[in-house]
Amino acid sequence: MAMIEPKEAQRLILANANLLSRVQVDLIESLGLTLAEEIISNEDIPPFDNSAMDGYAVKSSDVASASKENPVKLRVQSGLAAGQAAQDGIESASAIRIMTGAPIPNGADAVIKQEDTDLGASEVLIFSSAKAGENIRRAGEDIATGEKVLGAGHPLRAAEIGILASLGRSKVKVFARPKVAILCTGDEIVPIDEPLKAGKIRNSNAYSLSAQVVAAGADLRGFSTVKDDLEATKAAISEGLSRADVLIITGGVSVGEYDFVKEAMESLGAQAIFWKVAQRPGMPLAFWLMGEKLVFGLPGNPVSTMVCFEEYVRPALLKMMGRESLFRPKVKAILEEDFKKRLNRHFFVRVIVKEEDGRYLARPTGPQGSGILKSMTLANGLATIPADVNLVKAGQEVIVHLTELPEDH
Amino acid sequence: MAMIEPKEAQRLILANANLLSRVQVDLIESLGLTLAEEIISNEDIPPFDNSAMDGYAVKSSDVASASKENPVKLRVQSGLAAGQAAQDGIESASAIRIMTGAPIPNGADAVIKQEDTDLGASEVLIFSSAKAGENIRRAGEDIATGEKVLGAGHPLRAAEIGILASLGRSKVKVFARPKVAILCTGDEIVPIDEPLKAGKIRNSNAYSLSAQVVAAGADLRGFSTVKDDLEATKAAISEGLSRADVLIITGGVSVGEYDFVKEAMESLGAQAIFWKVAQRPGMPLAFWLMGEKLVFGLPGNPVSTMVCFEEYVRPALLKMMGRESLFRPKVKAILEEDFKKRLNRHFFVRVIVKEEDGRYLARPTGPQGSGILKSMTLANGLATIPADVNLVKAGQEVIVHLTELPEDH
Repeated sequence: MAMIEPKEAQRLILANANLLSRVQVDLIESLGLTLAEEIISNEDIPPFDNSAMDGYAVKSSDVASASKENPVKLRVQSGLAAGQAAQDGIESASAIRIMTGAPIPNGADAVIKQEDTDLGASEVLIFSSAKAGENIRRAGEDIATGEKVLGAGHPLRAAEIGILASLGRSKVKVFARPKVAILCTGDEIVPIDEPLKAGKIRNSNAYSLSAQVVAAGADLRGFSTVKDDLEATKAAISEGLSRADVLIITGGVSVGEYDFVKEAMESLGAQAIFWKVAQRPGMPLAFWLMGEKLVFGLPGNPVSTMVCFEEYVRPALLKMMGRESLFRPKVKAILEEDFKKRLNRHFFVRVIVKEEDGRYLARPTGPQGSGILKSMTLANGLATIPADVNLVKAGQEVIVHLTELPEDH
Repeated sequence: MAMIEPKEAQRLILANANLLSRVQVDLIESLGLTLAEEIISNEDIPPFDNSAMDGYAVKSSDVASASKENPVKLRVQSGLAAGQAAQDGIESASAIRIMTGAPIPNGADAVIKQEDTDLGASEVLIFSSAKAGENIRRAGEDIATGEKVLGAGHPLRAAEIGILASLGRSKVKVFARPKVAILCTGDEIVPIDEPLKAGKIRNSNAYSLSAQVVAAGADLRGFSTVKDDLEATKAAISEGLSRADVLIITGGVSVGEYDFVKEAMESLGAQAIFWKVAQRPGMPLAFWLMGEKLVFGLPGNPVSTMVCFEEYVRPALLKMMGRESLFRPKVKAILEEDFKKRLNRHFFVRVIVKEEDGRYLARPTGPQGSGILKSMTLANGLATIPADVNLVKAGQEVIVHLTELPEDH
């Protein structure tokens, strides 16, 4: 299978990452999910004309001549706290004490704020006139009956959850979180809480990947490990796929003699979509379909694993969650030091991006070896250097995929 | 108590938001928390010199003359998969088959990548010379014994979790998530799944605030509601404080006759720090201390509640979680339409920010009434307009607090 370009790899993955089922969840559990239904309001928000101020509800015609010098005196009818319904209408030459949020009594068409009165209890002096509608929040001013409030595909954040609550939607239809299992392969990997023996390394990929899966909003179904053995690898892949929609395998996809993943996938009948991408880190990236399920083969080096998740797996998971926006923001940044690379490979350079005088500056985070995870802990972005470039000079512009907002201190 | 400026309100809150206890958690549970210990490596990462390529380990002196035209023939000793320890050293004029990640055998000082050999099994032809150290990843190249890897205060993201796993830290000391309870006050509010009666509104604030608390990474301890009644309000505040470090109260802090929160806080012996901030939305923001616990009084309008959480409560929660970076990124953006406001009030305008030709453009998200939550669902930032400005013309620059990255479609 020929090596392909990063863009083509991403296209092939997304073409095969299809939506999962819609599920109904409690509103309070919907944070970070994506709406799978159109929300049409069945009612007005606010549901009734109400007061925008603490003050007195009046007929505006009764106070047309009111001023500081010539106040108008009105009789005070019984008052209305927020939440009390207006039982009776307002009478002529009368005012009704009213609090913010309380319904406007029938017949009243304005609210005089209390600072413009003498705060009288049985009679009140009004020091200011008011236009009809003044200090009144109209029913349906925020959302009108029949209005489309949110469309399918809208991400559910705090504001959307607040709006759905105000509409009385205690349950909401969302796209399900894809279930993701992780399988780490290799005789050399040992659990992280065991002392290291010669030739062994700890299974850090299981942890960094688990965190990436959770941070993407997917449903992590745990990780397992398997030795370099064909039958064991086949069994572990089948087991992983039985409990997940997406299986991420690390290691075992390079050309080494002890790499059994490709053979295992073939003998399980998987459809190979691609293997090898013209990029660094992460050249031996592989992608298979097993029915509707996705299987990613990520290289075992810690940085390659994380970068491939970020660039390829995360967008697929977001698409499966119904998101319309799948990619990190791309910004132009000025590279602060020379960066040399070989031709014919697209490079992802871990950079720290900061803003200075309205432009972004990007500095590589030290040695870029694919084993060097430290370069990731310092980074807030991946600068992408195209295949046909072999030198970016300090001061030249690069495109950065921002994995985090540059921090404000 | 005099009205204060937003900056002063923020200063007073942060001065009183103190760190909580350090707790030990399982590494896999630490995502989004902040490291509360310094991490010094007890060992080298990688722990041993290992091969960067699939190929043959050799003594570089044995292959000094090797070239395509004049290959050097070496005897092949038994091979090493990744994870196998080198039992014996390499002999002269010999090569050992080696896979990526496998330990370098004693005596070998270079790896010839397999593309530069004939892949022989008992004897191998080497087509290329190698410098000492070539294709070898040195022990400690990523992290050396005794090196400080991460400092207290470092946020734990996927890369940090991966590094801690590689160091064998299955438990990690972090700052505890502050426990947050929410209390919504007002006779007018009803549970969201009940039909609306005249004069009532649904308790959407409980939901938007809950989502904001969870999104900030704090430990949400649920919400409760209370009627406009002094004794009930006192009891509800005490109950909320008994299960939380931070209590957020909505409503009941304006000047209305039915507002009992201030009176309740006073009679419970709380220390009032401020009440009223010269801003819109959110003027009647209040802040108390009850021992070491923080109590926020947020105005009850849906937008005011969310904006006050975003600008005042969130930074306090992040500080309590040990974060060094407490604020959203501030960017300069060009306002796309005129914005008029009254003087002497700092304004937070909900805007949608997009990037165009390397600069940010900000457009207000429609009507800015404090009841209009729709303006929040469209926004990805809050433009801040200073108190002494009463008009920003289209084309002028404003400072925006970015609540989300501008999306890339």
